[in-house]
Amino acid sequence: MKRYDQVAQALAQRIEQGQYRVGDRLPSVRAVCRELGVSVSTAQEAYRRLEEAGLAEARPRSGYYALPVARPETLPRVTRPAQRPLEVSQWDQVLELVAPSPEEDDRLMLGRGVPDLDAPSLRPLKRELATLHRRVGTYGLNYDSLQGSLALRRQVARLATASDCLLHPDDVLITTGCQEALSLALRTLTEPGDVVAVDSPSFYGTMQILKANRLKALEIPTDPRTGISLEALELALEQWPIKAIQLTPTCNNPLGYTMPEARKRELVALAQRFDVAIIEDDIYGDLAFTASRPRSVKSFDDEGRVLMCSSFSKTLMPGLRVGWMAPGRHRDQVLHMKYVSTGASATLPQLAVAEFVRHGHYERHLREMIRQYRRHRDIMLGWVDRYFPADTGVSYPQGGFLLWLELPGVDCVRLKDRLAEEGLHIAPGSLFSASGKYRHCLRLNYAAAMTPIIEAALECVGAIAATLRETRPDHAPTQA
Amino acid sequence: MKRYDQVAQALAQRIEQGQYRVGDRLPSVRAVCRELGVSVSTAQEAYRRLEEAGLAEARPRSGYYALPVARPETLPRVTRPAQRPLEVSQWDQVLELVAPSPEEDDRLMLGRGVPDLDAPSLRPLKRELATLHRRVGTYGLNYDSLQGSLALRRQVARLATASDCLLHPDDVLITTGCQEALSLALRTLTEPGDVVAVDSPSFYGTMQILKANRLKALEIPTDPRTGISLEALELALEQWPIKAIQLTPTCNNPLGYTMPEARKRELVALAQRFDVAIIEDDIYGDLAFTASRPRSVKSFDDEGRVLMCSSFSKTLMPGLRVGWMAPGRHRDQVLHMKYVSTGASATLPQLAVAEFVRHGHYERHLREMIRQYRRHRDIMLGWVDRYFPADTGVSYPQGGFLLWLELPGVDCVRLKDRLAEEGLHIAPGSLFSASGKYRHCLRLNYAAAMTPIIEAALECVGAIAATLRETRPDHAPTQA
Ligand SMILES: Cc1ncc(COP(=O)(O)O)c(C=O)c1O
Ligand SMILES: Cc1ncc(COP(=O)(O)O)c(C=O)c1O
Repeated sequence: MKRYDQVAQALAQRIEQGQYRVGDRLPSVRAVCRELGVSVSTAQEAYRRLEEAGLAEARPRSGYYALPVARPETLPRVTRPAQRPLEVSQWDQVLELVAPSPEEDDRLMLGRGVPDLDAPSLRPLKRELATLHRRVGTYGLNYDSLQGSLALRRQVARLATASDCLLHPDDVLITTGCQEALSLALRTLTEPGDVVAVDSPSFYGTMQILKANRLKALEIPTDPRTGISLEALELALEQWPIKAIQLTPTCNNPLGYTMPEARKRELVALAQRFDVAIIEDDIYGDLAFTASRPRSVKSFDDEGRVLMCSSFSKTLMPGLRVGWMAPGRHRDQVLHMKYVSTGASATLPQLAVAEFVRHGHYERHLREMIRQYRRHRDIMLGWVDRYFPADTGVSYPQGGFLLWLELPGVDCVRLKDRLAEEGLHIAPGSLFSASGKYRHCLRLNYAAAMTPIIEAALECVGAIAATLRETRPDHAPTQA
Repeated sequence: MKRYDQVAQALAQRIEQGQYRVGDRLPSVRAVCRELGVSVSTAQEAYRRLEEAGLAEARPRSGYYALPVARPETLPRVTRPAQRPLEVSQWDQVLELVAPSPEEDDRLMLGRGVPDLDAPSLRPLKRELATLHRRVGTYGLNYDSLQGSLALRRQVARLATASDCLLHPDDVLITTGCQEALSLALRTLTEPGDVVAVDSPSFYGTMQILKANRLKALEIPTDPRTGISLEALELALEQWPIKAIQLTPTCNNPLGYTMPEARKRELVALAQRFDVAIIEDDIYGDLAFTASRPRSVKSFDDEGRVLMCSSFSKTLMPGLRVGWMAPGRHRDQVLHMKYVSTGASATLPQLAVAEFVRHGHYERHLREMIRQYRRHRDIMLGWVDRYFPADTGVSYPQGGFLLWLELPGVDCVRLKDRLAEEGLHIAPGSLFSASGKYRHCLRLNYAAAMTPIIEAALECVGAIAATLRETRPDHAPTQA
């Protein structure tokens, strides 16, 4: 065992034994060096391990804090999806989510994947959007380059270094949101009838791409702390002719976990061994609560095997529809797909985002948002604890602004319909499965201000959930 | 023969016999009534027939004018594409056209399909784009409704009445440019390996959609005055399992013709008889030079068989990427395709266009542009006459801002490369065919100000074309 692993284990033991309480500040790196006689880098590495294990949390310019000890009794269970490729259903439910206009729908949208759009640190971007066209003249109104504006591709490549990705601007292709990136990737790699392995639960947008292209989803069991089961994935790769592995390994939607680095590395090795492509959805990656930005799966890939997809929809604003991808060795084919899909992407929003990033506003905005979302997560967890049945399973997000609840015995599609009468909206878990599993789960959003209105809403969701509950003992998570 | 047809014939004879010279004002509707003893509506209908036949041209608030008598010797020939379904090639050439950024490429772009972006009548739209976000708040930053903003769908439905289309806002789906609309339509209607009938020459963007989806193009002979040959199309429908007919019947890109109404009606009847869908690309339709907006093919369709695709890229600005479609009876499937393709379209540009249209700026802008483009067409035709070899075939656009030249014996791909050295850009005709036909043709743009620089450029294109010419007598159009 490496020295830093020993140190990490020692600290983990103390946390687990309750020597530090949840939220306590842990000894500083320097204190650990002194006490255990190790170097600064060893102590730092040990803390990174603790962080990955979900036992400690770094807060910028402050240090490490103890986390609730993995509360295994309240985390959602490891998922057990079907063991065979399935056609994707659930379109009606997704449509119900994406059809209403935010202008006309006055429900309190607790279920949608929308960031805080009122954040003051977004103001410089709004300013760019309003004034940029005067500076750029007709270029801003014309067709842009098919690849996307070089100014933005440069900034994307620069930002990617934070996740240890070395990209050249020519490796980057600007898209109409992450949805288009995912769509291009899947259409490039597959033909109708092919099988794609996915984490489970999985983002419904990707599932519906599978459906539209007549692909089959092979849902792989997924751990709410460490992500897709590599063991199950390996078995699946042996058994089925899988064309691509699609997953959201960092600040997962909906489960909130970040796959530990070692597992990301293993995933790439597995894909190499079976010669299969990986589609990495990194859309929430920049919103990780860890001290340093988690590495992307792409950063372990030296063969161009990983097609990385992302956008500014969760970090800035979804209405811009500015996304990007790094398609690796599939670049030429993806570029053709992009051309036929929508032609060049809209010009001015790209330039506005490029300016925003170039002036350092993006990094500043991320720092604010990460702080806000972490605080909101803790508040939200408190409310769930207070207002939901005791056996509720709840995720412990490592980033982003989405919470996943497991409500044994509660039909969350019914719950959603009941809540609509109260002017409330939640996303039922069944959206996140090819076959409508996770119907006893739901997704909540904690991005915007945590007002008394939100608290009252949570109380209402919890209360109505309790009334809908069928008492079937085999739903209790402890029996899983 | 109907009375108005007799009147039309009488007038046509006089034009053809040279009784009126090109550009002469023709007798007013009232004068025709008096002289030939017919009703106002008969005289009006007769003029509409003349207009459709390309013999007269209406100028708003002024009357009808004689056109060059169909100059059959200088019009491009009726095309004779291959008689069998083909795989589409030419991607490299299209990529060369769409890859450069307008910011970095300082060639004079004579070949691209870009409208005049300096038009003063666009100013209110630029103002909307700059100020709108303040009025609409976070709605402008959020995901829009999947169908698109109701405000814009209302305006699109209202505008569509000009082409005799009765659409409800719910029949309209906002897309990311016309390219996405075409892509969704084709993917909804076909499976890999299917055959699609297209006009020929045909917009390269659609051809590349066929390629990306492994569809085959059956190019139908097309008349540069009346469009796709219905006779050839009927034969093709009998012979091949055609899944869809895709065409640009109004202000065609690249040939500039508008199919006469009667032929549009016949086309719909033919599609009914063979139970096949029509994808109508109407992107240039609002830019017709005729007194009243030509009817769309969709307007003859009472079965929801026509999927109409359009955008504001040619009438306003392409960089906005605001398009729309009326998918008829395929709405539900197309909506699913739209969701997986890019999700909801960008919010603010939709709202800005809706405001611009709502305030009447769009119709005002169209009037200006139509006047400008018609004037530019005439200037451009003069320059072609002056600077190009005498046997050059040239289209006579009925709308839009694109001219098609046929240069017997000239390889226009070579011409394009030679012109790049002079800082000039043209679009070689081979882009517009599945198999690279029309290599002796080229497309020119006359949207922007017709300055001495453009004239000098035309002179240069004509001169270099003359030097590249191989003198093979079988290229002369008169021998076709
Ligand atoms: C994991 C994930 N991927 C992709 C998307 C789609 O992103 P965009 O809005 O940029 O198309 C979302 C949005 O909900 C998402 O949650
Ligand atoms: C006939 C035709 N259809 C569709 C398009 C694509 O339009 P958009 O830029 O709105 O995607 C073009 C653009 O060149 C075109 O000429």
